[in-house]
Amino acid sequence: MGNIKQVAVLGSTGSIGRQTLEVIGALPHRFSVIGLATGRNTGLLAEQINQFQPRFVHSQDNTPSTSAKHEFLSLEEMAGHPEVDIVVMATSGKWGLKPTLAAVKAGKQVALANKESLVMAGEIITREAKLSGAQIRPVDSEHSAIWQCLEGEKQKAARIILTASGGPFLHYSIPQLTQVTPEQALKHPSWRMGQKVTIDSATLMNKGLEVIEARWLFDMAFDNIRILVHPQSIIHSMVEFADGSVKAQLGQPDMRLPIQYALTYPERLENPRLPRLDWDNIKELNFEPPDFDSFPCLRLAIEAGKKGGTYPAVLCAADETAVELFLSKDIKFTDIARLVGQAVEEHKSIAHPTLEEILAADTKAREKVKEMVGDNR
Amino acid sequence: MGNIKQVAVLGSTGSIGRQTLEVIGALPHRFSVIGLATGRNTGLLAEQINQFQPRFVHSQDNTPSTSAKHEFLSLEEMAGHPEVDIVVMATSGKWGLKPTLAAVKAGKQVALANKESLVMAGEIITREAKLSGAQIRPVDSEHSAIWQCLEGEKQKAARIILTASGGPFLHYSIPQLTQVTPEQALKHPSWRMGQKVTIDSATLMNKGLEVIEARWLFDMAFDNIRILVHPQSIIHSMVEFADGSVKAQLGQPDMRLPIQYALTYPERLENPRLPRLDWDNIKELNFEPPDFDSFPCLRLAIEAGKKGGTYPAVLCAADETAVELFLSKDIKFTDIARLVGQAVEEHKSIAHPTLEEILAADTKAREKVKEMVGDNR
Repeated sequence: MGNIKQVAVLGSTGSIGRQTLEVIGALPHRFSVIGLATGRNTGLLAEQINQFQPRFVHSQDNTPSTSAKHEFLSLEEMAGHPEVDIVVMATSGKWGLKPTLAAVKAGKQVALANKESLVMAGEIITREAKLSGAQIRPVDSEHSAIWQCLEGEKQKAARIILTASGGPFLHYSIPQLTQVTPEQALKHPSWRMGQKVTIDSATLMNKGLEVIEARWLFDMAFDNIRILVHPQSIIHSMVEFADGSVKAQLGQPDMRLPIQYALTYPERLENPRLPRLDWDNIKELNFEPPDFDSFPCLRLAIEAGKKGGTYPAVLCAADETAVELFLSKDIKFTDIARLVGQAVEEHKSIAHPTLEEILAADTKAREKVKEMVGDNR
Repeated sequence: MGNIKQVAVLGSTGSIGRQTLEVIGALPHRFSVIGLATGRNTGLLAEQINQFQPRFVHSQDNTPSTSAKHEFLSLEEMAGHPEVDIVVMATSGKWGLKPTLAAVKAGKQVALANKESLVMAGEIITREAKLSGAQIRPVDSEHSAIWQCLEGEKQKAARIILTASGGPFLHYSIPQLTQVTPEQALKHPSWRMGQKVTIDSATLMNKGLEVIEARWLFDMAFDNIRILVHPQSIIHSMVEFADGSVKAQLGQPDMRLPIQYALTYPERLENPRLPRLDWDNIKELNFEPPDFDSFPCLRLAIEAGKKGGTYPAVLCAADETAVELFLSKDIKFTDIARLVGQAVEEHKSIAHPTLEEILAADTKAREKVKEMVGDNR
């Protein structure tokens, strides 16, 4: 109880990173920030450094505006540093892959918000975690919910029920979807998140990636992972056990709750800043099956996950590239799924790939998508 | 795993008792029935004896239709017998009190379906369980849900959210309630239960008694137990933790699920006879606050629980008597709360009562209610 955990926050200036620092800031008797790393947002990084006085810092352009008392480390050095207790992997995209692996190999407690690590390299990461004794603590609200529901249970889940808000375009027809703008897609009905994740939530790609993550985090067959649309985002996910009993975890849609749990596990700490469910104002919770036809990214992701190999890496890379093209208004919303589908279809996968093979597939898929768009524009 | 648990089922011919035997019958490699006890339904008892061949039997009229190979024991002897591993307390009413105490004193695993034990003598029973190491495993679906949600958690709950179906008369006005018949009250919308419990569910007395039980089972202050009407009876109850995270347990409304969990805990066993939630057919779950004005039994129970002493015993006894009078059409539905309220109000309670004082208060309250009805008819 008495000892203060040393936390390295990789991706500290992004949405999850900032919320992580907010949680840590509220619990100074339990956590200390030993490392901060960001990509290019060095302005905010400088503020964070000033507030938390970390020993280690990193930024992508190698020129942190820091004094000599902060040691500059690479992401991998920071993630695996012996004095780090908990690594919060809050970087987005494939940049999280190598530092996640470094943290896992070093046997850290890894609070994992980076989706791509498990989606692209789930086999490698879970194998290394078993070898090193690293503990992967999910930060995604859905996986955190499943993890919380499994806590203390003596057996594996029989089935996972992953809830999905359905995103801002729930019940939109395909013709309607072709017309949606980045501005509309960035308005998520229930969650406060980064841009890439918000668009992925609108295409339901995000939910598909979560299915792949769940497969690795909980060693669950794809056929035993079910998606259920639940627009209120109050039930964050559910687990069905062998006897038919189901446990659900509920809460306000607020990432600080799963972030804090990943930090304090197995304890729970009172934190007055965290919102509570108000049952005076919850009159109904709704459920419906997902619409695989209007949101083909969902099926693409599950198929890529089932096929394994380098398919999920190609899925991720093609999606990230397509989302960028959508945000820059170079393609339509519905083109995202089309491009991802085409990239996956044309890909020749490698079974049980190495990290290098995964990253090579990623690079190639990005080029491919840009090439396809060049042809089509 | 290999050893077969010896189960004594007290109240084997009632609703919970019969469902317990159904569960045990489906899991013959795990459980064996060592004892069966009933009140007066010796016909069904004889059938059960024939099927399960228990070593010990009991019936209230002392004349079991059994062969010499079955040993006749009192309820208390059976509950505390050294060869019994698990005691299922499925008797209803105050008859469960002494055998529950005997099972608890003998350090048994007690699958407790008898509400009155904890309501009338919660202080004594929980104290004795601490001394002996007995484990009280709730069978009520609500308390089983809370127990399941707490499993593996390192800290006490911050708050318990006890769900209530609202019973068959949800949204009835007080004038409408004065007119309801025993036939209507016995038709519960979601649960298959015994007569007394079904009427208590219609008056919401049942939920009030469950609040008192929850107070003892989970050492929870009354003010941290909240009742939430949830007509579908899919969420069986919820627990809120210090960090604001909420866990819920869900399932089809079927008592065999919590019965089986109380038997197999901490394991869960696959049982194809148990129903599963079908998310294709669950479109919404609804919630609303309970109506304390139309269902005054709820408030009466919580007040009696808060006051403690012999008040809860008087509440139980007055309610049981009033329910009998309602079933025999001697009083109206709304008279149940009136009589219970009057009995509690006129009672002079004893703080920290002995079992004898509790039973004396019970007897007196029953006489009182009959007397009050005699005056009023």
